[in-house]
Amino acid sequence: MKRIEIFDSTLRDGAQGEGISFSVEDKLNIVRLLDELGVAYVEAGNPGSNPKDLEFFRRAGELNLKNAELVAFGSTRRKEIPVEEDKNVQALLTANTKAVALFGKSWDLHVRDILRTTEEENFAMISDTVSFFKSHGKKVIFDAEHFFDGYKANPDFALKSLEAAAVAGADILVLCDTNGGAFPNEVFNITKSVVSRFNIAVGIHVHNDGGLAVANSIMAVEAGAVHVQGTYLGFGERSGNANLSTIIPNLQLKQGYRCIPAENMQLLTPVARSIAEIANVRLYGGEPYVGSSAFAHKAGMHADGVLKNSASFEHVPPEAVGNERRLLMSEISGRNAVLYRISRFCPEISKTSPELNGIIEELKRMELEGYQYEGADASFELLVRKRLGKIRPYFELGYYRITGEKPNTNDYSAVATLKVHVGDKAQTAAAEGNGPVNALDKALRSALSGFYPILSEFHLVDYKVRVMNSKQGTAARVRVLITSTDGKNEWTTVGVSTDVIEASWLALRESMEYKLVSENVEPL
Amino acid sequence: MKRIEIFDSTLRDGAQGEGISFSVEDKLNIVRLLDELGVAYVEAGNPGSNPKDLEFFRRAGELNLKNAELVAFGSTRRKEIPVEEDKNVQALLTANTKAVALFGKSWDLHVRDILRTTEEENFAMISDTVSFFKSHGKKVIFDAEHFFDGYKANPDFALKSLEAAAVAGADILVLCDTNGGAFPNEVFNITKSVVSRFNIAVGIHVHNDGGLAVANSIMAVEAGAVHVQGTYLGFGERSGNANLSTIIPNLQLKQGYRCIPAENMQLLTPVARSIAEIANVRLYGGEPYVGSSAFAHKAGMHADGVLKNSASFEHVPPEAVGNERRLLMSEISGRNAVLYRISRFCPEISKTSPELNGIIEELKRMELEGYQYEGADASFELLVRKRLGKIRPYFELGYYRITGEKPNTNDYSAVATLKVHVGDKAQTAAAEGNGPVNALDKALRSALSGFYPILSEFHLVDYKVRVMNSKQGTAARVRVLITSTDGKNEWTTVGVSTDVIEASWLALRESMEYKLVSENVEPL
Repeated sequence: MKRIEIFDSTLRDGAQGEGISFSVEDKLNIVRLLDELGVAYVEAGNPGSNPKDLEFFRRAGELNLKNAELVAFGSTRRKEIPVEEDKNVQALLTANTKAVALFGKSWDLHVRDILRTTEEENFAMISDTVSFFKSHGKKVIFDAEHFFDGYKANPDFALKSLEAAAVAGADILVLCDTNGGAFPNEVFNITKSVVSRFNIAVGIHVHNDGGLAVANSIMAVEAGAVHVQGTYLGFGERSGNANLSTIIPNLQLKQGYRCIPAENMQLLTPVARSIAEIANVRLYGGEPYVGSSAFAHKAGMHADGVLKNSASFEHVPPEAVGNERRLLMSEISGRNAVLYRISRFCPEISKTSPELNGIIEELKRMELEGYQYEGADASFELLVRKRLGKIRPYFELGYYRITGEKPNTNDYSAVATLKVHVGDKAQTAAAEGNGPVNALDKALRSALSGFYPILSEFHLVDYKVRVMNSKQGTAARVRVLITSTDGKNEWTTVGVSTDVIEASWLALRESMEYKLVSENVEPL
Repeated sequence: MKRIEIFDSTLRDGAQGEGISFSVEDKLNIVRLLDELGVAYVEAGNPGSNPKDLEFFRRAGELNLKNAELVAFGSTRRKEIPVEEDKNVQALLTANTKAVALFGKSWDLHVRDILRTTEEENFAMISDTVSFFKSHGKKVIFDAEHFFDGYKANPDFALKSLEAAAVAGADILVLCDTNGGAFPNEVFNITKSVVSRFNIAVGIHVHNDGGLAVANSIMAVEAGAVHVQGTYLGFGERSGNANLSTIIPNLQLKQGYRCIPAENMQLLTPVARSIAEIANVRLYGGEPYVGSSAFAHKAGMHADGVLKNSASFEHVPPEAVGNERRLLMSEISGRNAVLYRISRFCPEISKTSPELNGIIEELKRMELEGYQYEGADASFELLVRKRLGKIRPYFELGYYRITGEKPNTNDYSAVATLKVHVGDKAQTAAAEGNGPVNALDKALRSALSGFYPILSEFHLVDYKVRVMNSKQGTAARVRVLITSTDGKNEWTTVGVSTDVIEASWLALRESMEYKLVSENVEPL
């Protein structure tokens, strides 16, 4: 089977997308996901461009990657400077990765109008920098920026740029369509001519300005490229980069290439959802293969056809990529998926258990309200356990009252007062906070601490707000996700309301309940 | 110049997309837009499938189209029924259009498993129905459903289906990739073999399940197809249909085809925004050519390059499709990008203006606090104008107080009270809301309405919350983005705080200030 190296640049080129911004934690989490999926390379940033990337590489040792190799990204040296004195080149070394991706110019227009230097100096910049990193024992991936535009304008110059990298020892020559305007046939023909000329692996890196990035990547592979760069969900500057979550199944399920381990193909959809969640963007429903609508059938005739023979209206089976078929406006939905999740904590529930229908109905009702349990395992488990009568309540809310004000009359902008009932006792507490939710969190812990001391052992590590049906402006419904940890485990709970404080309250209270359930604490 | 007939099916195949639903008024408005743009055909529905489509065709006479021809869509006759007795065929006649699109089967699997009839009966169904509409003087566009899958499974059968339509007098043979899984080379080769075999115009209709619909449409044109079906924004079942707003500029600006009148190319972006508005979906920012990010540059080096020579990082000039260049502010954007943005509303500021350094420093300071101006043009403009002393304050906050409670003592969960100073007057107001931010929004509008009546002319259309450094749990800093519209323009403002209410307040107050500035209202 022909192997294709998948090179993901979500953290570098993807971060150039409008509205995309990753914290160091976000980046570490995305690397873990991509490593588990089994891509060959993860390009993680440019240590010369900002301090966040520098910190990322300092912490990258925590990662213990199984499949992926981390890559640091940077430019060839500046013009008229010895390579070893170039600050960005030095910064790139400090990333301490085994592989580096270097970009250099291969379009004469850029050398003339943007770099404003001579052709000879451009080739020297490429060759010096590649040699420098080879002499430091790095694998060098050379990204020939604007290669296709450059080739169309001046093929001789474009090829000489590649040659400078090749002679200096580059391990992979990557042909870039940086402006994203190339056509499939052009990419095929130009890639073919490069592949036949060099004895080095050839890669492809394209942007989506013509809506052709997936096609162009595939045409390059058909022409002999063996290394495909892109971003997992197509994030990237302007109209984005080639979308790897589309390219991988296209190549692997239909063209017989091996991009990632076969057993990981079913992770394609969950990884897409997790990355979207981390990036805090809504995954487009129509996203090929991994979107929630990708296997959703609306026309009655299509739904009918799919039930008679799924190949009649589906290009691949949804489960091959970890997605699922949805028949819109119909009752049939993910029963097996629900059962699978329940079996992890209630193995006694089976396909024929009478309780199962009730659980599925409740899940549907909650989903209509805007709940989503994909990222909130703890809330899912609590819902099922409550439904099965396996939990007695630990506490009940009497009331909470929040006040917020500006200007502040003290150090904090918000105060929460609340009363909880625990068994036949009650406790009132109050707390100030940096905002209403922070105040509520503190007040609730304070009220419960006398009854359940174990609650002092955990804290919140993540708080996310997602606005749904946002066209209703400030009256929109919000979904709050809260992730907590006690050092051993991490769990996530969810709450939904038009009121951000109430949604937070619902997620907060379940974060406490889940801790108590998981420690087998008896309700007082 | 080679002409390509553009056939838009937003109203028919597009309406199969999840979440898409058009009223009769919506449909009439979309037809008007597409006609003005200059497409050749608008497929408007299936009068046999629902009463809404029937009413649409009754009212279609109102339209007075200049460029486009309306098309009604329906199936070939049912099996074993004389064509003139088939109810759907009769309904199709009542649409009273000059052209009809008929779909029939060309994949033997469908004939066997879905229709459950013989091959001969399938060919008779095609031939009878085409003949029937030809005898009624209609132009007949024959859609060969699943043609590519059918051809790959049984080329002889697939071609015989086309032949049945051709012999009966069909005017155009449209090859459909109904499951959306075909590859560009396949589409090219198969289309080429059809084009060489028939003396009739050949068309293409593809879906996007492999993320290849734009590429496949273009490959079909390169193989000789002269008629392209799609939906203007790619709406459609599952992953959607071929996106015409990408295909038209690809073919017309880069390949020398004529799809619509040249002078209408600049309508591509406004028509995209209007159709998205009518469909009540948010146009994806990265949409090639017509999205708001399609010409947005974030990396400092790209922004710099584009200012030196726009071709260096843009595949076409944005104005060629009625879009515009945007240079995004971010930690990685440079001085030139800031200057470019300022020049649009303060052209007197130049590279050497002494004020520029102060503005850039303030931007950096705000970005450190978590502000991000790339999506918040209105806040950016206010920041610069304030810094330049060009705005006197419209109002000052005296205080606001928010209370929220659970359980609610009335219909709403939150109440806001606030006092604003306007000149030497003051106004106190209060409002209830679905949450604290909604209450604050209402109270502020109520307090200001007597001073600035123009503020009643706009409303919020989008509200987003992004938690930064979210690892600090509920004490995390949040960034709120608010988008407002007055029907003509849309503007976005931003606020940052650890307190979600304060962050919302900051974005809310700027949404009002921006409206007043942009209408040249004098502060009271």
